[in-house]
Amino acid sequence: MALKTELRVVALVGGVGGAKLAYGLSQLIAPENLTILVNNGDDFWHYGLRICPDLDTVMYTLSGLVDKTNGWGVAGDTIAMLDALRNLGEQPWFRLGDRDLATHLVRTSRLRAGESLTDITRSLSAALGIQASLLPVTNDDVPTIVSTREYGDLDFQTYFVRYRWQPSVSAIRYQGAESARLSDSALAAIQSADLILIAPSNPWLSVGPMLAIPPMREALLARDVPRIAISPIVAGQAIKGPAAKLMAELGYSVTPHTVAAYYGDIINGFVYDRQDSDLVVETVRTLVTDTVMKNEADRVRLAGEILAWAARDDVR
Amino acid sequence: MALKTELRVVALVGGVGGAKLAYGLSQLIAPENLTILVNNGDDFWHYGLRICPDLDTVMYTLSGLVDKTNGWGVAGDTIAMLDALRNLGEQPWFRLGDRDLATHLVRTSRLRAGESLTDITRSLSAALGIQASLLPVTNDDVPTIVSTREYGDLDFQTYFVRYRWQPSVSAIRYQGAESARLSDSALAAIQSADLILIAPSNPWLSVGPMLAIPPMREALLARDVPRIAISPIVAGQAIKGPAAKLMAELGYSVTPHTVAAYYGDIINGFVYDRQDSDLVVETVRTLVTDTVMKNEADRVRLAGEILAWAARDDVR
Repeated sequence: MALKTELRVVALVGGVGGAKLAYGLSQLIAPENLTILVNNGDDFWHYGLRICPDLDTVMYTLSGLVDKTNGWGVAGDTIAMLDALRNLGEQPWFRLGDRDLATHLVRTSRLRAGESLTDITRSLSAALGIQASLLPVTNDDVPTIVSTREYGDLDFQTYFVRYRWQPSVSAIRYQGAESARLSDSALAAIQSADLILIAPSNPWLSVGPMLAIPPMREALLARDVPRIAISPIVAGQAIKGPAAKLMAELGYSVTPHTVAAYYGDIINGFVYDRQDSDLVVETVRTLVTDTVMKNEADRVRLAGEILAWAARDDVR
Repeated sequence: MALKTELRVVALVGGVGGAKLAYGLSQLIAPENLTILVNNGDDFWHYGLRICPDLDTVMYTLSGLVDKTNGWGVAGDTIAMLDALRNLGEQPWFRLGDRDLATHLVRTSRLRAGESLTDITRSLSAALGIQASLLPVTNDDVPTIVSTREYGDLDFQTYFVRYRWQPSVSAIRYQGAESARLSDSALAAIQSADLILIAPSNPWLSVGPMLAIPPMREALLARDVPRIAISPIVAGQAIKGPAAKLMAELGYSVTPHTVAAYYGDIINGFVYDRQDSDLVVETVRTLVTDTVMKNEADRVRLAGEILAWAARDDVR
């Protein structure tokens, strides 16, 4: 598919699923017209390093460095540091690849020197040859806290990685989001966008932390352009990760309807999978297509279909 | 040599040369009777990590992890992180091996959590199976600043590693030493020592930073026990590193005399090499022997000779 569009596109993305859509978009949209806004809710401190898992996943995916089997981390990375950490009596539970560490070290030392996460991300992306704008939604700290029935409140990575999202979730909160500021670059991108996309990322864990920032919500609602979410739920399942399990634990039906309802008036368009075509979402305009991105061609095809649909007059 | 001594020994050491003597001592002295006090003047921040090169060199040497060719770093270590750092556009000039990084990460995160360098070093040493006490001399920051004729003031690692000690040195100062405190453990070890040794480390760059701490000087002078330095200068050369070059730049003659004079009343015994046996050091009792430690047997032999000599009544 050779479609190149002049649309200025902003995509809100989380980790692996969001990175796939971002990759598809990056193949179709001129880099100066593409801004990827990434969830910061997963960011955490670990062994003194500031780790931003979603930013890293998207950065590694767009630069081609990503481990394609996992969908995150650096392809062919080694774990000599982790081995040595165990030798020192530590029990590390978060995978820190040796090459991956360079990203964390540069980010952490620049943050400590007072640079913003936005500027650092821009510089790391540029060094890796990424031409589109890859931005955290905020430079503030907005850690997602997961309340679980087994362990009480857990920070996100403890829930997600350490306990492999097995605890049952009773509530989620986005700590600090109420007073967080949208970064100037993120705001400017939204204000000039012709199309706003919400990737098929986990609504509660990946997109929710961004929407919980009041100026983000306001900026989105102020734009009279197509604002389209893609359902991460297909045939009652999540493509990857805890979305379906989480929805059930929170008492929701595990359907695209629930996702569309969660986004409410933030979206005016919704894309969901052909496997759910017997369901009718009536609140917004919809596109029913194949949304599962199994390979790189799927990513580009899905991005292309959404762009083509969004460009039609009748969507918003 | 099977000599085991009941002497309680404190050794003041710097990096590679000091580590060799420490190793020799560790083979002869019961671990509960051996305290290695290590220079902190080289410690620095790099990519947000707190790196203590001399502590690490001694720790890796005593634990057997050390790269025996270099005398520092971890044997067989890889540099995937450094490669990735270069890929991010960085120009790292300090070698950070992947396994070595684990030490820096654990140390840094514990320091940031408020633990003392003394406690952290104790815990890292224990994890690596080191039974003797390995201690920084102080928990305070006492960075060595090297004034050079070419570049003005340089922090130690910039002088030593980045510029490979090629700039000409006009002065050295131990920043913060005047108000630094000796750690309680270091003080206690000195107060109960039967023998105090100063390793054949660089007097100005490795031992000087320790002696510049006033309570350290006082604690040493208060002890009526053998206080013996071993000359790092042999036949007008330094065994390793910039000691000889530095002495000439500072206007000193490059001889064991200069070393003995530098230590002044801190020492009451002095060991120098047979190659300099034509020189007579008159200010303190002396032992002339083979001081060059080419292999592990040399380390144990030299340590043993010094211990035997120190145990004689006529030294102090």
